[in-house]
Amino acid sequence: MVILKWIGNYFGGCRYLMGFAYFAGANFLLTLVAAILCVCFAPTAAGPGIPEIKAYLNGVDTPNMFGATTLIVKIIGSVGAVSAGLDLGKEGPLVHIGSCIASLLGQGGPDNYRLKWRWLRYFNNDRDRRDLITCGASSGVCAAFRAPVGGVLFALEEVATWWRSALLWRTFFGTAVVVVVLRAFMEICKSGNCGLFGKGGLIMFDVSNVSVRYHAVDIIPVALIGVLGGVLGSLYNHLLHKILRVYNLINEKGKFHKLLLALSVSIFTSVCLYGLPFLARCRPCDPSLPDSSCPTTGRAGNFKQFNCPKDYYNDLATLLLTTNDDAVRNIFSISTPREYEILSLIIFFALYCILGLVTFGIAVPSGLFLPIILMGSAYGRMLGTAMGPYTKIDQGLYAVLGAASLMAGSMRMTVSLCVIFLELTNNLLLLPITMLVLLIAKTVGDCFNPSIYEIILELKGLPFLDAHPEPWMRNITVGELADVKPAVVTLSGIEKVGRIVEILKNTTHNGFPVVDEGVVPPMGSRIGATELHGLVLRAHLVLVLKKKWFLQERRRTEEWEVREKFTSIDLAERGVKIEEVMVTEDEMEMYVDLHPLTNTTPYTVVESISVAKAMVLFRQVGLRHMLILPKYQAAGVFPVVGILTRQDLRAHNILSAFPHLEKSSGGKKGH
Amino acid sequence: MVILKWIGNYFGGCRYLMGFAYFAGANFLLTLVAAILCVCFAPTAAGPGIPEIKAYLNGVDTPNMFGATTLIVKIIGSVGAVSAGLDLGKEGPLVHIGSCIASLLGQGGPDNYRLKWRWLRYFNNDRDRRDLITCGASSGVCAAFRAPVGGVLFALEEVATWWRSALLWRTFFGTAVVVVVLRAFMEICKSGNCGLFGKGGLIMFDVSNVSVRYHAVDIIPVALIGVLGGVLGSLYNHLLHKILRVYNLINEKGKFHKLLLALSVSIFTSVCLYGLPFLARCRPCDPSLPDSSCPTTGRAGNFKQFNCPKDYYNDLATLLLTTNDDAVRNIFSISTPREYEILSLIIFFALYCILGLVTFGIAVPSGLFLPIILMGSAYGRMLGTAMGPYTKIDQGLYAVLGAASLMAGSMRMTVSLCVIFLELTNNLLLLPITMLVLLIAKTVGDCFNPSIYEIILELKGLPFLDAHPEPWMRNITVGELADVKPAVVTLSGIEKVGRIVEILKNTTHNGFPVVDEGVVPPMGSRIGATELHGLVLRAHLVLVLKKKWFLQERRRTEEWEVREKFTSIDLAERGVKIEEVMVTEDEMEMYVDLHPLTNTTPYTVVESISVAKAMVLFRQVGLRHMLILPKYQAAGVFPVVGILTRQDLRAHNILSAFPHLEKSSGGKKGH
Repeated sequence: MVILKWIGNYFGGCRYLMGFAYFAGANFLLTLVAAILCVCFAPTAAGPGIPEIKAYLNGVDTPNMFGATTLIVKIIGSVGAVSAGLDLGKEGPLVHIGSCIASLLGQGGPDNYRLKWRWLRYFNNDRDRRDLITCGASSGVCAAFRAPVGGVLFALEEVATWWRSALLWRTFFGTAVVVVVLRAFMEICKSGNCGLFGKGGLIMFDVSNVSVRYHAVDIIPVALIGVLGGVLGSLYNHLLHKILRVYNLINEKGKFHKLLLALSVSIFTSVCLYGLPFLARCRPCDPSLPDSSCPTTGRAGNFKQFNCPKDYYNDLATLLLTTNDDAVRNIFSISTPREYEILSLIIFFALYCILGLVTFGIAVPSGLFLPIILMGSAYGRMLGTAMGPYTKIDQGLYAVLGAASLMAGSMRMTVSLCVIFLELTNNLLLLPITMLVLLIAKTVGDCFNPSIYEIILELKGLPFLDAHPEPWMRNITVGELADVKPAVVTLSGIEKVGRIVEILKNTTHNGFPVVDEGVVPPMGSRIGATELHGLVLRAHLVLVLKKKWFLQERRRTEEWEVREKFTSIDLAERGVKIEEVMVTEDEMEMYVDLHPLTNTTPYTVVESISVAKAMVLFRQVGLRHMLILPKYQAAGVFPVVGILTRQDLRAHNILSAFPHLEKSSGGKKGH
Repeated sequence: MVILKWIGNYFGGCRYLMGFAYFAGANFLLTLVAAILCVCFAPTAAGPGIPEIKAYLNGVDTPNMFGATTLIVKIIGSVGAVSAGLDLGKEGPLVHIGSCIASLLGQGGPDNYRLKWRWLRYFNNDRDRRDLITCGASSGVCAAFRAPVGGVLFALEEVATWWRSALLWRTFFGTAVVVVVLRAFMEICKSGNCGLFGKGGLIMFDVSNVSVRYHAVDIIPVALIGVLGGVLGSLYNHLLHKILRVYNLINEKGKFHKLLLALSVSIFTSVCLYGLPFLARCRPCDPSLPDSSCPTTGRAGNFKQFNCPKDYYNDLATLLLTTNDDAVRNIFSISTPREYEILSLIIFFALYCILGLVTFGIAVPSGLFLPIILMGSAYGRMLGTAMGPYTKIDQGLYAVLGAASLMAGSMRMTVSLCVIFLELTNNLLLLPITMLVLLIAKTVGDCFNPSIYEIILELKGLPFLDAHPEPWMRNITVGELADVKPAVVTLSGIEKVGRIVEILKNTTHNGFPVVDEGVVPPMGSRIGATELHGLVLRAHLVLVLKKKWFLQERRRTEEWEVREKFTSIDLAERGVKIEEVMVTEDEMEMYVDLHPLTNTTPYTVVESISVAKAMVLFRQVGLRHMLILPKYQAAGVFPVVGILTRQDLRAHNILSAFPHLEKSSGGKKGH
């Protein structure tokens, strides 16, 4: 602050520079706080977090994604980054915050803060945790857009991999609570003692008080918006992909580089926001408007006076020198057809294209929704201004449609975006056109590249399992796949401690088939049969070693012994490593009965099944391991051919073992 | 007509009776047409059709459900039944009509009308047909309520069993087309030359022009509406269940009884609708209303004059002597707090409770939505009138909430109903209360009985596979299940014609495992192994017999032979019966090579897996047959333990074989 004052004094009466120093300095400091928190305490809090949540619900856990530290950093960082005037939204972070809270509740409290609620342990299982995180994500969208149904649909369409009807009304319940609480706070804050909270009412960008009239000819501009939105959206995805790769290289160099990048973007943003309004001309107020609405000098409102004389306003300042939310509100504003010059809109659009591309990858919590809405609304309004004489649709509605089309072109959602826009704008009559625009933009965008979230997932290297198998996966069987893998490591039902330790130390597998040899089955003459008993998890094996549940002789344990030793809470324990377990030489010669620990009902496939079908099973049922059984039945045939995991079923990994497959399919097919 | 005139003349100047004769006669004739069509030509066209569509998408095909005859009868019958003033809606039938059209398109045209489009054959497979029918159902809801997003969500929440993200935007596309076409027709019909079509605009029951103000105390009446809606909804389900059972007994007696039932209901309805308004007093018009709006004599509008002097109106006539749609519009009407006397509302509510119960089961196309909306809106408005002095919420909105709560109490949907009501009423500010009401009503209803569609599915005996296995299914393995079934019938890879004919005639199985004995596998020492080759379908076996694709000697066919003989269109042929196939004595001694016809990649489970897990696999992946493999591996072990079908996995069938399971679970658990 002292420095800023000094700079100000140095330039004497130059109030503009003084103003800039305060503006840029405040933004700089806020960005610094957000970036330092993210860089030093919780790197997972940077970015939107939605791709990681999507991956988690698909079965891929990112470490430290839902911890208490991440939550706190995300909240403070998001406040900092949004207040710093960066071109990013609070929507993605709110989704992540919702999921973090849900996950912490599901675990019964944070692991590392000694706050645990025993009674919440009930939800401490994978399925309930997944459900809770889905509810958290939908509540986050609901809180961000005040769109309860949109939130449910966002979780359904974009985030979740598995969906059950019970989950539908649970997320719905979650968002209902959010919206009732929001409504209650607005009621409490009506007297104005909570600052700006609740000023906008329950509908954020209300455009309901314009009558929507459209006719058959309006199909043409609407289709044009859709096509342009699709092209621009996929172009945005493409460029963002390139820039994120460059950013990854910079960020890998260390914490200092990360900070530097964030701060440079902050300064660049400040310079642009402060400097560009000077390029716009002062425009006279429309005399038909009431006096108080033009020009305005306060925080919100259209027709900012900025640097202009009385009864004049600066249109670019109206868009730039305000919060992102208010900028959207201003550009969506209806019945103001001559408010913005086309040049100002072009400058605004170009600026937010650049900012949208350079801001997203920096190390602060950032959402993608608002930058895209800003870009899209600008080009929509530009198109509306250009089409002005030929159409009856209001320019504000053009801006809404432009925003919707760019969202669909980049994120490729349809139903959820449609409902979110409906709930944002409260104009039901616009619905048919919005639907058309969304569908056209999505279809056009799908011709060029995948959705932005898929691109980010790919960049982060998360092994996301797609809903649809590639066509060439029908031409390869799981047996062939198992043949090129290292031979499967199996355990006996009663296994030596030494062998378990050796296997756990020398392999990284997380599941091992348990096979009993030489058993006599209950019925008939199957003497000397081999029995596939099931699958035992690495975590449980480590647990056995840690708890030293060993037997002196090779025998099966009784049921009462099992009941005495293990509780289901023990079995839910995770995170013990084999390196932390000490086993003595004597113990190495002892035995462990794996039968009570084995999951005796693993899902299986026959070796002759195609990879495509195996993948459908794997994803639909939500598995981690799948055993491959032989199709032959004879003495000496081993009852397990192999074991399949998520990594084995990824297209990329299969193709590296079977390169001819891709050729036969004629390249990758989008969907 | 002559008779009616005669009756009229007989009673001389008694114009009331004359009017009644015309009214009841017209209703009678319209009902007669609808009922005769349904009874004689397409019994599957009766009722809403939604449960059957739901069952189809779950994997249970009802014969003649989606044929061209059904479609035509449904359209004409629905027009007749709705015009006859019966207490039923056009929503269910429109869903069915949409699905029929979709299904016919998917098949390339109707089977029996010699109209086939070859190029549509592309969609003639199970998955595309299922997708098309889902799109048809959502388009039907969209057309009925002019609710595009609601239609998509209805298909998602209530109708579909499997859901893919691709299906989401496909149904969305379907409803977008519907709403654009609707909008275009409204534009064309603006001049008024299409009768009453499009009068209401795109929003059917618009209540947007009332400002919704509610505070914390309004939670109490809102919760009360929800609880009452849940109780009444489940009570309605319960009573409807009983009445449908009685109706089933009547309908089983023959076509004449079916007709008689439908016509009695029609006469009863006419008597009530015509007679009851005489019970209501004439009420003076509110002088603050404009002259033209009170009293009205035309078709639509509030404040019907009926039998009253000038400046007086009959409130019960306003509700009864109009179409069902207009009745809803009148009862939803806002800013008319003193329009209806509580007595009139009680009469209306009681009448529609009775009509709603007795009308649904008759042999005409009928929907459930509108009757429930009518009942619900009446009790909501009653509650609103009673609460009048204590609340700021408009009585019209109480009626909306009442309708929503009864729908949720009976149908147990949440998100889709919420969006449908939003799109019907165009009042976004009502959303938080609607959500609360829906959730409360659904939760209360779930305490008593399952949803109305599940009750109807149960009554129709359709083997619907539930999403969740019962808890006791974890305590039984598929091996135990296979043990109590007749031994599995397997075929050899190269089988004698005689044996195939014998098996097809003596069993009703639709799939047979194919097992090769004594094969030498490609690798190693597995001499004398048995190989599970796959599963062959009954339809394909019959096809082989019909096409006489026999071999003189026991040998494998070459690939070129296969290519020459069978095309994929042949294999898609269905419906040939074994009884229609003639095989000579000589041919009985020949052989068939089943290898090329076998599905070599069936889904399998090991015998030790629990029924609960097998059921998850069965439903999630969408199977018809599932092979059970032995967990033992030895010479002499048969490679197939059994085969599971949908019927084997139904809770009812398992319990009849293992009655002790239910006791151990402590009775059935709802979900």
